Amino acid sequence: MTTPAVSSRDLPHPLRDEVRLEGVLHALADPMRLRIVRELATASGELSCSHFELPVTKSTTTHHFRVLRESGVIRQVYRGTAKMNGLRRDDLEALFPGLLDALLEAATRQAARLAD
Amino acid sequence: MTTPAVSSRDLPHPLRDEVRLEGVLHALADPMRLRIVRELATASGELSCSHFELPVTKSTTTHHFRVLRESGVIRQVYRGTAKMNGLRRDDLEALFPGLLDALLEAATRQAARLAD
Repeated sequence: MTTPAVSSRDLPHPLRDEVRLEGVLHALADPMRLRIVRELATASGELSCSHFELPVTKSTTTHHFRVLRESGVIRQVYRGTAKMNGLRRDDLEALFPGLLDALLEAATRQAARLAD
Repeated sequence: MTTPAVSSRDLPHPLRDEVRLEGVLHALADPMRLRIVRELATASGELSCSHFELPVTKSTTTHHFRVLRESGVIRQVYRGTAKMNGLRRDDLEALFPGLLDALLEAATRQAARLAD
């Protein structure tokens, strides 16, 4: 009897019930990660990591995506050689109704205010 | 000519325009600080630091209040010998309409869910 093969490329994600508000807020308490989330929120589908041109090193970018994934904010899957990213809107909305939109709205307002 | 006396007990607070979303989220990304904010939100007025019975040392409690003050989430003032704390609702609402309520609602939901 064999156990089902688990690809080494499967990335660990918290289940919906394991997502914690403190973790979500920590994940979003960083300008780069907030920027990633704002961009994912306006995308119609998944975006690859390489889509994002952040003013940080590749390894720092990878770190930011991992924090977002491990907190339950985004889902990351491999499609061929590309790591694709999408917001876990349904999970976040089920756990914390209205919160993601309030956070995105706050981020948008702040970006507009600081750009003046 | 003399400069106005500034009491050494005056505590530094960010001005409204200096408050940053990332700082607010960092301040709330901690279970103890989230608990303090939830309690301040249900209070009718200011609460003294000693009102809070947190399962941490006094110096850790002081640290948590300082993080909340320096991020712009709370205002701390001395009244006699007591350090009193109040949420900066007006400032937060002006900067990020609806965000504080969404965060408090999310925290309440999570507390109820984890207590089940």
